[in-house]
Amino acid sequence: MTVSAHRGEILHCLDDPRDHGEQAWQYFEDGLLIVEDGHIGACGEARRLLSGLADSTEIHQHANGLILPGFIDTHIHYPQCEIIAAYGTQLIDWLQRYAFPAESKFEDPNTAAATADFFLDELLRNGTTTALVFGTVHPQSVDAFFEAATRRNLRMICGKVMMDRNAPEVLCDTPQTSYADSKALINRWHEKGRLGYAITPRFAPTSSSAQLHMAGRLLKEHPTVHVHSHLSENKKECQWVGELFPQCKDYLDVYEQHGLLGRRSVFAHGIHLSDREWRRLQESESNLAFCPTSNLFIGSGLFNLNKADDYNVKVGLGTDVGGGDSFSLLRTINEAYKVQQLQAYNLAPIRSLFLATLGGATALDLQGVIGNFETGKEADFIVLDYYATPLINFRITKCKNLMEKLFVMQMLGDDRAIRETWIMGQKKFAR
Amino acid sequence: MTVSAHRGEILHCLDDPRDHGEQAWQYFEDGLLIVEDGHIGACGEARRLLSGLADSTEIHQHANGLILPGFIDTHIHYPQCEIIAAYGTQLIDWLQRYAFPAESKFEDPNTAAATADFFLDELLRNGTTTALVFGTVHPQSVDAFFEAATRRNLRMICGKVMMDRNAPEVLCDTPQTSYADSKALINRWHEKGRLGYAITPRFAPTSSSAQLHMAGRLLKEHPTVHVHSHLSENKKECQWVGELFPQCKDYLDVYEQHGLLGRRSVFAHGIHLSDREWRRLQESESNLAFCPTSNLFIGSGLFNLNKADDYNVKVGLGTDVGGGDSFSLLRTINEAYKVQQLQAYNLAPIRSLFLATLGGATALDLQGVIGNFETGKEADFIVLDYYATPLINFRITKCKNLMEKLFVMQMLGDDRAIRETWIMGQKKFAR
Repeated sequence: MTVSAHRGEILHCLDDPRDHGEQAWQYFEDGLLIVEDGHIGACGEARRLLSGLADSTEIHQHANGLILPGFIDTHIHYPQCEIIAAYGTQLIDWLQRYAFPAESKFEDPNTAAATADFFLDELLRNGTTTALVFGTVHPQSVDAFFEAATRRNLRMICGKVMMDRNAPEVLCDTPQTSYADSKALINRWHEKGRLGYAITPRFAPTSSSAQLHMAGRLLKEHPTVHVHSHLSENKKECQWVGELFPQCKDYLDVYEQHGLLGRRSVFAHGIHLSDREWRRLQESESNLAFCPTSNLFIGSGLFNLNKADDYNVKVGLGTDVGGGDSFSLLRTINEAYKVQQLQAYNLAPIRSLFLATLGGATALDLQGVIGNFETGKEADFIVLDYYATPLINFRITKCKNLMEKLFVMQMLGDDRAIRETWIMGQKKFAR
Repeated sequence: MTVSAHRGEILHCLDDPRDHGEQAWQYFEDGLLIVEDGHIGACGEARRLLSGLADSTEIHQHANGLILPGFIDTHIHYPQCEIIAAYGTQLIDWLQRYAFPAESKFEDPNTAAATADFFLDELLRNGTTTALVFGTVHPQSVDAFFEAATRRNLRMICGKVMMDRNAPEVLCDTPQTSYADSKALINRWHEKGRLGYAITPRFAPTSSSAQLHMAGRLLKEHPTVHVHSHLSENKKECQWVGELFPQCKDYLDVYEQHGLLGRRSVFAHGIHLSDREWRRLQESESNLAFCPTSNLFIGSGLFNLNKADDYNVKVGLGTDVGGGDSFSLLRTINEAYKVQQLQAYNLAPIRSLFLATLGGATALDLQGVIGNFETGKEADFIVLDYYATPLINFRITKCKNLMEKLFVMQMLGDDRAIRETWIMGQKKFAR
């Protein structure tokens, strides 16, 4: 057995701080994280744990930093790297003007491979260790992505877009080909090492009912795969869904009627939901991805976290690159805080940390393997840098307690605040 | 005469792009900026201008970057550096819990001097070359600030806070002392070198009518000084002003009845304004500072730039540190864009550049000396770096034209995007 240890300030969540207060997290000012064969061996006070280590154990010192579980991004599009920060449109126009042309390039496996490499390196640079990722309609986009993830030994979930209408012809599949291609990808990649597959109908407007039925059939045949789609992002979109699916009660009901809700289903956005939809999300144990930078950048609206909490709907954070304009979960937390401030709802720093780690893991139904430092979990973790910038350095010295420091790192931090990213106990990024 | 030149991509505004379209800006792909004794000697195509230079002229090459006029921050509090990113409150509570305790430390001239140094270095690091700055109630806070600005040869405007009620006693002056102290500071600093003074009543709720009358009297006696205050930031604040000044028509009318409107008056925020107030702002040629990061961070609301444009009210951008959470005008533009997106109003990249440069200069009534590269103006400029981060570098290569590049720098840029900051032709910051 290979054993190593990491000594420094350590913070992680055990549960949702909304419900469990100070019981929901652990902090060790002089902590030790012991890694055994890529998994967490133990996490606790250094003084208590050091004595149990063999003298030969390598101990990594992480001074002036904070060791956290790796960040989890519950909604992102890897083929949209090149259209981050595309000007001047809201959702439907944005898709047609920017997203579809960009995605059409992923027919080429070389484009897909090069972009997947850039994308995953950006994730590591930003401290993101797991993500739920859109590919394009092309199966080769998913092959390229999973190959790049395998090379880095990352826990990643991805899927081929299913889309058979209201999109350029070159980006459309059919109910039959989308079923067959997705099924082949599931067989090729799902649960291979750390990888997982997500059935990925883009969103209700670009799938026929026949295609959504095939998606539901896939889920029945492969109950351990994920479902990844969009829900109620933009008002015009919602109206359009009403016109396209007059037989459905509302937007969520489109997915429900096709058998796509459940504890492994993640719907991005969920901004304009009815109380019925909130209730059905909760009852079906479905999850939402809150993507504040995207919701602001393309002007979609303000996600109501208070309501999600009232209905006990599970929520993760998503950067939604390329609708979102940052790969950083810290920047995402910054804007999540602001979106909630506009609605007079306080998003506490420990809650944000939960959403970006264990909460995200739970939204992906991966809380058994990642999200915190419980013994046996996979050792994906990051080290934040209290000296990341002159301003952070100046500001941190004025903080009176841990929560102030955490909040400062969340509000003022960006990719620079990630000093190191470790995957299964191996250092994969260092500034 | 000392002559030097800067060669590279150059962009600057001549007017407001909203009204003048492509006539409002100049771009030179291979441009030359000639600096003569700290002022702009000429700006144009390198090929045209190079031949007129003496052989001995030093020419600075700025490859893979963009030369812009220095950024102008029309609202910021230097004593609030240490409370950037303070958690969990909206305006009134934020003032009491964070701002007032921080400001009380500025009775100590050493604190003031050290903070002024840190603050001005941060501005330079972020490409901000001129700012309209709040001090504290203590005259020594303004002395320390102007001394630090003088050492860096910066064009800065600052003023001592006037505040005689609804604040901790140690932070209160009186109508008489605020008048006398402000007058002494005006005599000591106003128009000394590049410095300007701003009469600075914090905001209506913390000044008695007697104090605001003294402020108005100061302005009459010193018509070239500025006025700097807050206006209509937060709904509770607006309601409070109504209770405190029942004799006034609305919030703006409080300032108007005390003689404080005019072309050198800058009011931060202006989020919850009536049509009457918009009209009176325009008729009085008063200016607003749009502070998106602050308005989001403390949950104040969404500034309506569309309405400001309809009423032809002059607007500058403000970071509003410490209510705002970034010193960067690029980050401020990012969030300004998002605030307008939420209101379905497109903030074009060239318009944002205008707001951050010539528009800001105009809001400070300094368009005669700074804001663009017209011959004779002071040579304060910055160089943006197209290689600032891996993501910017990746994204810039996909841009098809100047406006896309500018928008990418605005959306993805931060302090790292500022490669150099030059003040009166002297390099004062380089990464």
